[in-house]
Amino acid sequence: MSQQFNMSGPIEISQACVDDPFWSAEQELVRTTVLPYQWRALNDQVPGASPSYCMHNFRAAAALNKRLNGQEGSGDFQPPTYTNQGFHCLPEDPDHPDPDKFYGYVFQDTDFSKWVEAVGYSLAHHPDAELERLADGAIDIVCAAQLDSGYLDTYYILNGMNRHFTNLKDHHELYCLGHLIEGAIAYYQGTGKTKLLHAAERFADYVAAAFGPADGQLHGYPGHEIAEMALIRLYETTGIKRYLDLAAYFVNQRGTSPLYFEQEDRQRAAYEHADFTIDDSRPAPYAYYQAHGPVAQQRQAVGHAVRAGYLYAGAADVARLTEDPALNEAVHALWRDIVDKKLYVTGGVGADADAESHSYAYDLPNDTGYCETCASVALVFFARRMLQLEPRSEYADVMELALYNTVLDGMAMDGKSFFYGNPLEVRPQTKRNKDPRYSYVPIVRKRWFGCACCPPNLARLVESVQDYAYTLAEDGSTLFVHLYIGGRIQADLGEGSIALRVHSELPWKGRISLEVEASGDGQTTLALRLPSWAGGDAAADAVTVHTGQGSSNAISRRVEQGYLYLSGPWKQGDRIDIDFDMPVRVVAANPLVSQDAGKVAVTRGPIVYCAEERDNGANLHLLHLDGSALSGDASRVKVEPFTFQAGAYLDDPQAEGHVDAISRSMVRLRVPAWRESAEGADTAPLYRQWQPVRRMPATATLIPYFAWSNRGENEMRVFLDVD
Amino acid sequence: MSQQFNMSGPIEISQACVDDPFWSAEQELVRTTVLPYQWRALNDQVPGASPSYCMHNFRAAAALNKRLNGQEGSGDFQPPTYTNQGFHCLPEDPDHPDPDKFYGYVFQDTDFSKWVEAVGYSLAHHPDAELERLADGAIDIVCAAQLDSGYLDTYYILNGMNRHFTNLKDHHELYCLGHLIEGAIAYYQGTGKTKLLHAAERFADYVAAAFGPADGQLHGYPGHEIAEMALIRLYETTGIKRYLDLAAYFVNQRGTSPLYFEQEDRQRAAYEHADFTIDDSRPAPYAYYQAHGPVAQQRQAVGHAVRAGYLYAGAADVARLTEDPALNEAVHALWRDIVDKKLYVTGGVGADADAESHSYAYDLPNDTGYCETCASVALVFFARRMLQLEPRSEYADVMELALYNTVLDGMAMDGKSFFYGNPLEVRPQTKRNKDPRYSYVPIVRKRWFGCACCPPNLARLVESVQDYAYTLAEDGSTLFVHLYIGGRIQADLGEGSIALRVHSELPWKGRISLEVEASGDGQTTLALRLPSWAGGDAAADAVTVHTGQGSSNAISRRVEQGYLYLSGPWKQGDRIDIDFDMPVRVVAANPLVSQDAGKVAVTRGPIVYCAEERDNGANLHLLHLDGSALSGDASRVKVEPFTFQAGAYLDDPQAEGHVDAISRSMVRLRVPAWRESAEGADTAPLYRQWQPVRRMPATATLIPYFAWSNRGENEMRVFLDVD
Repeated sequence: MSQQFNMSGPIEISQACVDDPFWSAEQELVRTTVLPYQWRALNDQVPGASPSYCMHNFRAAAALNKRLNGQEGSGDFQPPTYTNQGFHCLPEDPDHPDPDKFYGYVFQDTDFSKWVEAVGYSLAHHPDAELERLADGAIDIVCAAQLDSGYLDTYYILNGMNRHFTNLKDHHELYCLGHLIEGAIAYYQGTGKTKLLHAAERFADYVAAAFGPADGQLHGYPGHEIAEMALIRLYETTGIKRYLDLAAYFVNQRGTSPLYFEQEDRQRAAYEHADFTIDDSRPAPYAYYQAHGPVAQQRQAVGHAVRAGYLYAGAADVARLTEDPALNEAVHALWRDIVDKKLYVTGGVGADADAESHSYAYDLPNDTGYCETCASVALVFFARRMLQLEPRSEYADVMELALYNTVLDGMAMDGKSFFYGNPLEVRPQTKRNKDPRYSYVPIVRKRWFGCACCPPNLARLVESVQDYAYTLAEDGSTLFVHLYIGGRIQADLGEGSIALRVHSELPWKGRISLEVEASGDGQTTLALRLPSWAGGDAAADAVTVHTGQGSSNAISRRVEQGYLYLSGPWKQGDRIDIDFDMPVRVVAANPLVSQDAGKVAVTRGPIVYCAEERDNGANLHLLHLDGSALSGDASRVKVEPFTFQAGAYLDDPQAEGHVDAISRSMVRLRVPAWRESAEGADTAPLYRQWQPVRRMPATATLIPYFAWSNRGENEMRVFLDVD
Repeated sequence: MSQQFNMSGPIEISQACVDDPFWSAEQELVRTTVLPYQWRALNDQVPGASPSYCMHNFRAAAALNKRLNGQEGSGDFQPPTYTNQGFHCLPEDPDHPDPDKFYGYVFQDTDFSKWVEAVGYSLAHHPDAELERLADGAIDIVCAAQLDSGYLDTYYILNGMNRHFTNLKDHHELYCLGHLIEGAIAYYQGTGKTKLLHAAERFADYVAAAFGPADGQLHGYPGHEIAEMALIRLYETTGIKRYLDLAAYFVNQRGTSPLYFEQEDRQRAAYEHADFTIDDSRPAPYAYYQAHGPVAQQRQAVGHAVRAGYLYAGAADVARLTEDPALNEAVHALWRDIVDKKLYVTGGVGADADAESHSYAYDLPNDTGYCETCASVALVFFARRMLQLEPRSEYADVMELALYNTVLDGMAMDGKSFFYGNPLEVRPQTKRNKDPRYSYVPIVRKRWFGCACCPPNLARLVESVQDYAYTLAEDGSTLFVHLYIGGRIQADLGEGSIALRVHSELPWKGRISLEVEASGDGQTTLALRLPSWAGGDAAADAVTVHTGQGSSNAISRRVEQGYLYLSGPWKQGDRIDIDFDMPVRVVAANPLVSQDAGKVAVTRGPIVYCAEERDNGANLHLLHLDGSALSGDASRVKVEPFTFQAGAYLDDPQAEGHVDAISRSMVRLRVPAWRESAEGADTAPLYRQWQPVRRMPATATLIPYFAWSNRGENEMRVFLDVD
């Protein structure tokens, strides 16, 4: 069986750090702006933003816990009996929330978990005593809220434990478990402190006892996935196999017959004296939850795109660790379905904004597509797990694409506002006219969200980006370099260890160097990804090895599945120089994507470009790239380093869409183009005799997609007409 | 003031009849298929269709009336006290509706009114004793339901008169009045019978007493307009000025401050102990109802497109009859706004499917636009009223466009299924995948609707199409010929009468002849529209006058505002021969319509063409018309008479989309084109390096838009790519 698997594991966070200009800037933004902001948000201290109630709920649960344990007040205190507070519960008087009540979304506990996860990653490479003090204090409150049993979800603790685990489908208890685990592990890795990790283990133990195949156990699984991935991390952190078993149970039980969610819905309807109606999510009942059939039999990516990504990542983990060929086949098929039929050119997924879901094959609307930031975060997770199953550069290509484009697009350049959805085309008149078809399509970033999934999800990924750059082969033979991010990496390989110093000019230039700072004896292998944007396998020619002592012939070279394997007796002072070609690439979509017919997107390296009205004037549908300048020889496209000036278009720092004045070095593209005139069109007739269009020569200025909407509200397009 | 007005009035229905092959076929379909079907529908006798409850309600109200009047049972019977039954009320047990209760939509009475209107028109030119007997019987029931006061709306009669006229905004009482009047007049004109007309007058008198500027009167107006137009017809039929005054009041009071609907909403909220929330319809409060400001000050067509069309038609009537310059300016501006910014090339209006409303300027999505059949019926009404204000051929051009395309598209060729919405582009996968963005976009016609506005609205317009072909100048000098429909027309002109026999080969050929069958003495003028599709004013050259006695020089010719005025001593035997040029026209939209960028629509005469998958294969987005064959010389387009075969694609006559096998002679177009291959695309990567497309020569087969979706579910496009 194992010949199907060519697996690798993650590098521990403490073994890699980042210091390249591009990613350092992102991480600093998160550390200095996002994390403090997020802390205020989860303590309801952001003026104008809807309160989170996250820490409020933990405090209320901690107080209840004290009373239950007779530590305070009457010892015969009775716990609350459940009343359904709905998916989002707000206080009657917003100015005076009841200190004993639960408020916010059912999953509001995860605001803390995601914050503490990002804090953990940040502390790992950037000590900050004040931040650590804040986090320790929060952890004390959270742990005080945990029931003696180990259960820890404030929604049911405060509303009535008698109905806990009766609405797995919608009430996110196991989602809260998953995020708690992820946060606890990160904080443990960043600080060495175990208090939160133990709390997470206790909750996991409680769940592991409650769920499973045995009689008397619940045969259910998470409504919103993430616990699968998280339990695998807990297994890999603690070595306790119970967590792997539980993750495998959740993955393999999902969607089996009789369908747990349907049974649960029936029972809940009976309990609530309501009619039972089957969940009719498209394209099949319970498909929104990826519970329409057994995971090992799933072949099409469906339903809520974040949940789907988390499930597939967890399933890939389980496939790897249990060497399950059916699950392995399923995650490969699901990957292919996404990449071949449902992936935006920006690395976005989830074309169906109405259900935040994958749409059907080849349905990729540029203007109404959702492309949730979190869904691309989930795609990064999935891709990293696929890389661990099998080192193929396609996985890293997609991971990098999502990371540099849709994920980074989620945050404004000043770190103060965020996109949930990341469309590929906007026209401000849709917002000005309150067009309901575009109600999910943002034109400018918002400052925060009551349902704050995307900003902290982005924050935790940015703070741990080095985790995605490297994996180690399970046999200890090989260090894989998937992403070229400047910094340091130390890896324990089978025959010794190796420490590398990486310099990278990505994403703007293809020059990278990897210096061996230290190494053990014996043969070790470095496997360098050959990015598709640099020509794939042919890019191996861009890699030169310089050995300090003797000839570089001692290092053998082999290209396989998009990786250049360099094996030999690496010594301190050896150096690998890379100069990847970074041509401008003009990309067309498959002819079955009707929304992109006659259009192209322009990319360079890992960066996808777009045209903004600010640079190109209004009516971007009248701007056409000049096909004759793009086919064959793309040298007529000018690659132009420049300083991007964000902000300065809106005076009010509280206004939606405001971005603080900020400058960043980037590369923009200047593409030969032409445009149709709209002069006088607003007084011209609505229809006229067609004539071939008079082409007015123009130059299209394209900026990185992640940088759009940093200069106020304006039109934007990724796919542009070409002819 | 009167110099602003150059007005004409309608021809009475009995003075014109239709016998040309095209329109006779449509009228016969309505008479033999739609009217009997509709009668069964309003008696809840259509298997599988949601019941109308229309006649049920009239019977229940008649029974209640009897009891109230002590004619039956106890004389101290108490009328019901109001309880809100909601906008659409269904029986608890569908198999046993309570015979005393109201069911269906609040406006369900209009099912009868629209049916009897079409029956009236039909009987006018096609006697049918059985149909007349049915109608007389129905009228007896309806009249028995009328309260002694004259009030006649079964929703409030059955639910409680104590709250009548308290929800004008949404409860359609005055809409029911309007349709009752229209039906009653048609039935009177078709049969000479006055029973229903008197009932309508009594209801109108009741309303005229209740509404008006005096203290103690209600200062309101219809939530769904139509009463305005209808009251004008009642005024023109009876000569009673009270009806004109009421229509003028409704139009001029609408949207004035303080806003009646807002007051009503506040009062109703207080009565129902509910919170008052202002109606926030886009783009302004109460704009959905065209009540966001005084009508005379309105300049943009907004809100529900059917309501808007009915209001503008009524306002044009009032402007004409009261010679009100402000209202005249308003309807001209509203017309321009529609025609210059909001009209589909098919004559459809109402781009916003979510609210069945006009969207903002230049927003004309082909795939999600609504284009309700009724909205184009309303546009025909508005255009006819504009023609009466001022004979300009643009009005007739638009009227003809809506009539031959979006209106006729509303009905399948077998007369048995109907479109509510008439999109310009469909892809069946949107339905197969239950895509919510397209939930309002039909792919095939439905057999009937619970909310049955479109089918009977279409029926009444088709049966009275001759009414739209002609108007008479108010000074009696001129007979205007707006539409060229074969048949007979007799008109009383100032200095005598004239009777014409019209032969027309429209819409397939431009050959028309008008023979004078009889005439009085003296000078009379015939004003013939010069259609824009035939070249506008230049098309006057296609008109030849043959006088039987003496030279045709006796007939003077003058072209003005798109009409050819032929004046002289017309004599029996004189003949006008017309041979309008009918070139294929390739039409581009204004550059500000982003949805049509790079695309064209193809038209010929009044007919708009479309491409269906059935003729052109799937993936119509890969089909491009050959620009070089279309610019300058369009002779490379083949105009091809053919026999269209509808139906025969679905075996089950009850299935949605089934159309009975039926043949009709038409003209199709064969246009030089090319297509991009989709061969192998379903296994190809999602993105690839762009290369100029390899053009596979093809011929696009275009059929009349109104004929699409008569051969089963398939793709369709009106706007096609060109280059």
